[in-house]
Amino acid sequence: MGGIGSCCFGFCLLVVLIGISSGIRYQPTWESIDSRPLPAWYDHGKLGIFIHWGVFSVPSAGFNSQSEWFWTYWRQEKLPAYVNFMKNNYRPDFTYADFARDFTAEFFDPNAWAELFQSSGADYIVFTSKHGEGFTNWPSNISFNWNSMEVGPQRDLVGELMTAIRTKTNLHFGLYHCLYEWLNPLYINDKANNWKTYDFVRTKAMPALYEIVNKYQPDIVWSDGDYEAPDTYWGSTEFLAWLYNDSPVKDIVVTNDRWGMNDTCKHGGYWTCKDRYMPTKVPPKKWENTMTIDKGSWGFRRNANLEDYLTIEELLAIFIQTVSLGGNMLMNVGPQKDGVIAPIFEERLRQVGAWMGVNGEAIRGTNPWTTQNDTMVPDTWYTKKDSTVYALVLTWPSNGVLSLSAPMPTSNTTVNMIGYSGQFEWQKRSGGGIDIMFPNIPIDKLPVKYAWVLTLSNLENA
Amino acid sequence: MGGIGSCCFGFCLLVVLIGISSGIRYQPTWESIDSRPLPAWYDHGKLGIFIHWGVFSVPSAGFNSQSEWFWTYWRQEKLPAYVNFMKNNYRPDFTYADFARDFTAEFFDPNAWAELFQSSGADYIVFTSKHGEGFTNWPSNISFNWNSMEVGPQRDLVGELMTAIRTKTNLHFGLYHCLYEWLNPLYINDKANNWKTYDFVRTKAMPALYEIVNKYQPDIVWSDGDYEAPDTYWGSTEFLAWLYNDSPVKDIVVTNDRWGMNDTCKHGGYWTCKDRYMPTKVPPKKWENTMTIDKGSWGFRRNANLEDYLTIEELLAIFIQTVSLGGNMLMNVGPQKDGVIAPIFEERLRQVGAWMGVNGEAIRGTNPWTTQNDTMVPDTWYTKKDSTVYALVLTWPSNGVLSLSAPMPTSNTTVNMIGYSGQFEWQKRSGGGIDIMFPNIPIDKLPVKYAWVLTLSNLENA
Amino acid sequence: MGGIGSCCFGFCLLVVLIGISSGIRYQPTWESIDSRPLPAWYDHGKLGIFIHWGVFSVPSAGFNSQSEWFWTYWRQEKLPAYVNFMKNNYRPDFTYADFARDFTAEFFDPNAWAELFQSSGADYIVFTSKHGEGFTNWPSNISFNWNSMEVGPQRDLVGELMTAIRTKTNLHFGLYHCLYEWLNPLYINDKANNWKTYDFVRTKAMPALYEIVNKYQPDIVWSDGDYEAPDTYWGSTEFLAWLYNDSPVKDIVVTNDRWGMNDTCKHGGYWTCKDRYMPTKVPPKKWENTMTIDKGSWGFRRNANLEDYLTIEELLAIFIQTVSLGGNMLMNVGPQKDGVIAPIFEERLRQVGAWMGVNGEAIRGTNPWTTQNDTMVPDTWYTKKDSTVYALVLTWPSNGVLSLSAPMPTSNTTVNMIGYSGQFEWQKRSGGGIDIMFPNIPIDKLPVKYAWVLTLSNLENA
Amino acid sequence: MGGIGSCCFGFCLLVVLIGISSGIRYQPTWESIDSRPLPAWYDHGKLGIFIHWGVFSVPSAGFNSQSEWFWTYWRQEKLPAYVNFMKNNYRPDFTYADFARDFTAEFFDPNAWAELFQSSGADYIVFTSKHGEGFTNWPSNISFNWNSMEVGPQRDLVGELMTAIRTKTNLHFGLYHCLYEWLNPLYINDKANNWKTYDFVRTKAMPALYEIVNKYQPDIVWSDGDYEAPDTYWGSTEFLAWLYNDSPVKDIVVTNDRWGMNDTCKHGGYWTCKDRYMPTKVPPKKWENTMTIDKGSWGFRRNANLEDYLTIEELLAIFIQTVSLGGNMLMNVGPQKDGVIAPIFEERLRQVGAWMGVNGEAIRGTNPWTTQNDTMVPDTWYTKKDSTVYALVLTWPSNGVLSLSAPMPTSNTTVNMIGYSGQFEWQKRSGGGIDIMFPNIPIDKLPVKYAWVLTLSNLENA
Repeated sequence: MGGIGSCCFGFCLLVVLIGISSGIRYQPTWESIDSRPLPAWYDHGKLGIFIHWGVFSVPSAGFNSQSEWFWTYWRQEKLPAYVNFMKNNYRPDFTYADFARDFTAEFFDPNAWAELFQSSGADYIVFTSKHGEGFTNWPSNISFNWNSMEVGPQRDLVGELMTAIRTKTNLHFGLYHCLYEWLNPLYINDKANNWKTYDFVRTKAMPALYEIVNKYQPDIVWSDGDYEAPDTYWGSTEFLAWLYNDSPVKDIVVTNDRWGMNDTCKHGGYWTCKDRYMPTKVPPKKWENTMTIDKGSWGFRRNANLEDYLTIEELLAIFIQTVSLGGNMLMNVGPQKDGVIAPIFEERLRQVGAWMGVNGEAIRGTNPWTTQNDTMVPDTWYTKKDSTVYALVLTWPSNGVLSLSAPMPTSNTTVNMIGYSGQFEWQKRSGGGIDIMFPNIPIDKLPVKYAWVLTLSNLENA
Repeated sequence: MGGIGSCCFGFCLLVVLIGISSGIRYQPTWESIDSRPLPAWYDHGKLGIFIHWGVFSVPSAGFNSQSEWFWTYWRQEKLPAYVNFMKNNYRPDFTYADFARDFTAEFFDPNAWAELFQSSGADYIVFTSKHGEGFTNWPSNISFNWNSMEVGPQRDLVGELMTAIRTKTNLHFGLYHCLYEWLNPLYINDKANNWKTYDFVRTKAMPALYEIVNKYQPDIVWSDGDYEAPDTYWGSTEFLAWLYNDSPVKDIVVTNDRWGMNDTCKHGGYWTCKDRYMPTKVPPKKWENTMTIDKGSWGFRRNANLEDYLTIEELLAIFIQTVSLGGNMLMNVGPQKDGVIAPIFEERLRQVGAWMGVNGEAIRGTNPWTTQNDTMVPDTWYTKKDSTVYALVLTWPSNGVLSLSAPMPTSNTTVNMIGYSGQFEWQKRSGGGIDIMFPNIPIDKLPVKYAWVLTLSNLENA
Repeated sequence: MGGIGSCCFGFCLLVVLIGISSGIRYQPTWESIDSRPLPAWYDHGKLGIFIHWGVFSVPSAGFNSQSEWFWTYWRQEKLPAYVNFMKNNYRPDFTYADFARDFTAEFFDPNAWAELFQSSGADYIVFTSKHGEGFTNWPSNISFNWNSMEVGPQRDLVGELMTAIRTKTNLHFGLYHCLYEWLNPLYINDKANNWKTYDFVRTKAMPALYEIVNKYQPDIVWSDGDYEAPDTYWGSTEFLAWLYNDSPVKDIVVTNDRWGMNDTCKHGGYWTCKDRYMPTKVPPKKWENTMTIDKGSWGFRRNANLEDYLTIEELLAIFIQTVSLGGNMLMNVGPQKDGVIAPIFEERLRQVGAWMGVNGEAIRGTNPWTTQNDTMVPDTWYTKKDSTVYALVLTWPSNGVLSLSAPMPTSNTTVNMIGYSGQFEWQKRSGGGIDIMFPNIPIDKLPVKYAWVLTLSNLENA
Repeated sequence: MGGIGSCCFGFCLLVVLIGISSGIRYQPTWESIDSRPLPAWYDHGKLGIFIHWGVFSVPSAGFNSQSEWFWTYWRQEKLPAYVNFMKNNYRPDFTYADFARDFTAEFFDPNAWAELFQSSGADYIVFTSKHGEGFTNWPSNISFNWNSMEVGPQRDLVGELMTAIRTKTNLHFGLYHCLYEWLNPLYINDKANNWKTYDFVRTKAMPALYEIVNKYQPDIVWSDGDYEAPDTYWGSTEFLAWLYNDSPVKDIVVTNDRWGMNDTCKHGGYWTCKDRYMPTKVPPKKWENTMTIDKGSWGFRRNANLEDYLTIEELLAIFIQTVSLGGNMLMNVGPQKDGVIAPIFEERLRQVGAWMGVNGEAIRGTNPWTTQNDTMVPDTWYTKKDSTVYALVLTWPSNGVLSLSAPMPTSNTTVNMIGYSGQFEWQKRSGGGIDIMFPNIPIDKLPVKYAWVLTLSNLENA
């Protein structure tokens, strides 16, 4: 699989993936579905970008909560902050669907988005094709007048972004798809029938899902469906069997685990478990930390302040911890209704990209080491590639000595900081471990100003 | 059936209709469906009011054509007048669905509508539940965010009007339902497949139709579906068999003939044949002249001038001709997007009502006579009830003598003008027929100023 | 003045008016202003059309009151119906000025308006250049961003209508101008200062008035200013002296009497006294009955029903009474925000026009007779021209004899009905007056169906 | 004046300013006006925040140019990018004034703004009361329906912000006021008359200016009026004489130099010269560098990318250079139409504030030194307070030695870095100047990560 790094624009994938397309046919059972090996490209790059965009980007307001759930918070849960926001700013009979006309997207430039995502160091993106509001960001056949071509933007948002990603970058293109729709009467009826009727699944959820797979051939099908209904309601295993056996993306596609209530952290493709999942030890299956740069929301919030956004230091700390524990990080940005990705998001993405430009070798293609973070210096985290162990140091050692318990040096051990010329002195610790002497590097010589990476070679326990 | 006139609020109908509910079960074949006798109430009153209201009432513009087809004229047929109207008055990416937010209905007062319809002398109404745009005027389960509760009015227009009609008047409540939806992708796909796929019928058209029958129990199901697809596509006979056998309105319901291409003037319930249909002789089956007070449109047109509206004289002439030929007249009004029925429509309805207040006996409960209009005075039309023949005179005889060829007087024959005391002199014409002497009635003694009705009793050929 | 009827497009007026332009210079005193003879054209035609159009045409709602005062009713008087209308239909912080964007005028066709006005039989129009809201229907230099060119229509409404009237008809073109502006802070301040400061007059009211006179050269300056402030505040006599001495319309222009509090029925040009003014006897000065076809409003009201509109019979009754008492009638129509004049208004205008087409000789160029309405038949009204007396009969005599007390017949007296051939029999009444025998005219021979006119010639007291 | 730093909420200013209020009366001549000493508070704090907010914040788009000139770029200069933006996104007859309704300000929280401005280390703010569009952000008496109370926000933006600033912070409150209004017809007329008529000045510009001074008593009157017209047109010296002699802020107020064409860098209060002015040597009069964080615009631009915003390093470099040359920096932020200050602006403001928290002593209350930036190390800049000289070092010396030519050490000279404990070694340079040895400070010991400040004491040439 080593060749993937040098592949561009998907061409080499055919070669690589022949090995996977081995003639196995999956059965619509979890046992069979779960047996499928995860296509290797997914684990390699470690970093994805999640993009939440939809009609919720019009009110674009979250009050101590996420903006993309606006509709259900306002109308079903009747949270006072949302109810009052509507009362104070809209006519009394304004409906959620009335928002759609203002989803204008006049500044949406998919090529500019693609360039930005590429620059962030990410390896893939996941774009909301349809959220719980049911609005499809593509001209769906089964979402009449509730899609981005027929109301609002009058554009195929999914299609335009797919084309830009695939022609301008070498990123993988994934699609988020929410199975449920809070206020869809068919869904509500099926729920009232204890998921024993399937009108919603039959006429909306599944047709839409097949539609996007066939039409846009996504590399990731990021399902959101662990909310209320069991996978037997959704017919998830039947869909996945088709996806893995017969779909146009059967060999390359990656999926997640949100295929029904109680399936997360258990069935499907890689695990996402829950939002912002961070395990305490390496899970038995490939996983993803799905998180947000705006700490409080996936959809854009006009009323988010600077303190709601992760600093670059915080963002890198989460990323490093995630990779060290064997996960990918899918970091979310919420574009505005006009198609603009706010500069604060752009800044974070480019800051991550700059850091990755220096330190990417400690991330891409790595595996978890035997130890994840050091017992003596808990915010130093490890990754491993071949015989090299990387120590990712979040805090500069205050006395100039980083005393680590996990690495067992040999006499041939060398210690370097990525991006800094010259080796670091070190000493074997008497009780095991290693003391690494950090030189007083003046700031103009530092490769980065946060999250420094040491390469440890020739360890006894690499 | 004589009791119907005194029935109120539908209660007596149960009694009357027991005779119909005779245990017959209809088969889903035209032979069987067509064999069902038309419930008698429908023929009795002769006059209905058609109401076209929907998202098309927002642009509310027709350019030498009807406004309710705005969407397809603009987007599919690309008629220049419609294309230019949009170009000149809306932002470039404005979509048809974007109009819906402005369907405000703030002045919609269903009780006031009901009072007005009652005052017009009509016996029933037919309200657009869904037109070719697909927007449902009720909170349909299968028209998510494209219905009057979830976008625009935020009201159940069908339900509110039904309640008003049934609690405030003794009118029958009918629903118009358009089977096809011009721009619905499912419909377009089925059409592309030569009506060999049924996705649209299965997931939208038929579920919606069952929904309104079950929910609102309309006395009329006024189908619009003769446009492009055959009834085998729609499954029309299956629906009608259910409607006649098992629906909640099986005994009272009346339907029309627009159940598929080439069905009009042939199958179903009463005949409508084509818009503004006027036969030259009495058809073999009960029929309806579906026509408009705005001569050029069903939906409201802001740009209609006075000359586009029928005068009361023209309207009565059509009505009288229709009844004389055995038809009912369904006269259309188009409310505005704000729920107002324009005063010019109100004036026509109340003028008809005033005329009916005087002359209703020559309309309600009548049958066609052997002759429809007189060969010598073609704009004198006949109706008949029991042994009385009514001559409805559209033009005052210029020399004071109305010379009719059809009525054969006896010596006991009397001639009266409804609303005028005193009998008219008459003479038997030598070659057959009758000469009726119109007195010089001064205007203040005239019962009406147009369309005078003579009662001819004891005719030889009554 | 006889030549006026044959004049077109204002050309002949120069000749006629030379006599007026006699070198007199008026002083800015009421004594001098009031001494000016009224240009003769005004009295001749008797009928004008008032047009109220502005931002108030956007909400276009009146609740038992006129719609054009919407702003002050809502914000200053806080009438509950207006406050609630806004609360129920608009966002909480919606302002009156926010309405202006929806004043779209997309169907405004000044040539079509001109044709309609001409067809009504009117001789002049008066168009709202600016109402109490302060919005100018022309691109004023002193109403920045609160005029029809810079917000809403983006058109010079005054200018377009003026051009249409002057090129397509021979109607006189007048402008209504409201001196006060309820919510203009400068006006409010001057009011608070007991009209001892003049900021509003100096910077807005008077500059605007001079602007329209110079730019559009109206034949009528219809001032509205009797509301609160004295004419000394407005500087009315100074303006009028300029208007009569030096303005481009000094010879032809006609003005009214609303130039300051307590000036009505006293000073200025012709008298309007109060809205819908109807004197009980002929006033000492030429006057105008300014009235509305929608009985409750000047601006269009979407929520007006048919019963709110005068019937043609009521409208003619008011017109005939007005003319008989020496007045002109200025009948108001309120166009919609989109530029449409509703068909119910069009119908009334064309009905009046049709009546005038038959009976105009009893109106145009007439003078009050010695008696206005008959003491025995109070709804028969008189006008006089040369030696002919016209009796305008609103009610057909129920027994066929019209017994009038005022006309004193001679042996040469003849009585005709305009539009009906043949003379009417009559008898001199013993105690004075005349009995006129109405023949039983069948309806098809009647010239009109309401408001019949008799010409009485060779009366003793003509 | 040393007491100012400890003054809060303006109370101590009365004491301080008594000295200024010395009974001098200024004449309306530049000679007299220019002779007024600048109130000392202005020079002390060095940093102000400029806020551009108005109707231009609704389109909020600039295409390689500033967004607040949108109207004139679109309508007068007809720049293609602006014309096309309107053509592509708005209905054809959309006007600039039509934008105002969408100036909603629903998230405008003046207290939050005040807290943010305070946290930035600034000493004053300057808020746009009225820009070239003429829209007043306060309920002006002379901008009827073109102000923030009567259209759009329905709030007194100036008043609310003033209250927040004065009750929640100790910042000075200044107001920007644009004299000219590009598209105001009165202005255009006066211009066409070669500034020989004064209608615009008399009825709009000057009344508005007096209004804000009297109503909001701003500490700064930041005039914008050097564009086209001479100060004799504006009557600037008359206004300034009133402002300095008789206004409620006569003792404390500070003004700038944009009072007419060719006045900048010459007359008035402090100098601004031109946008983003940066002199090459200390000017003879107190001056201000008026600049923007979004390099391309004063008003918010939705279409600005990250690269359009100054980095914190760039921003501090400009600030330090400005102060070193004796100027104040007025850094601009453009809030969004909804009242949000975008997080990228907030980040820059808080970054500056954090830097000032460490290094403020080298800024506040300082004066220019004899040298501004060092001849040998041009991006090291100097300030001076009492006997201390501050060297503000933008670039860390790459070899650890900062060799400066300007400071002449004595034997008692000490060198410190603000925020770092311990003195720096230094050596007198043979040819004059000083070599300062920078220790290799590890990043965790650095007081700031950019723009380090050295204190040089006991210099020979302090």
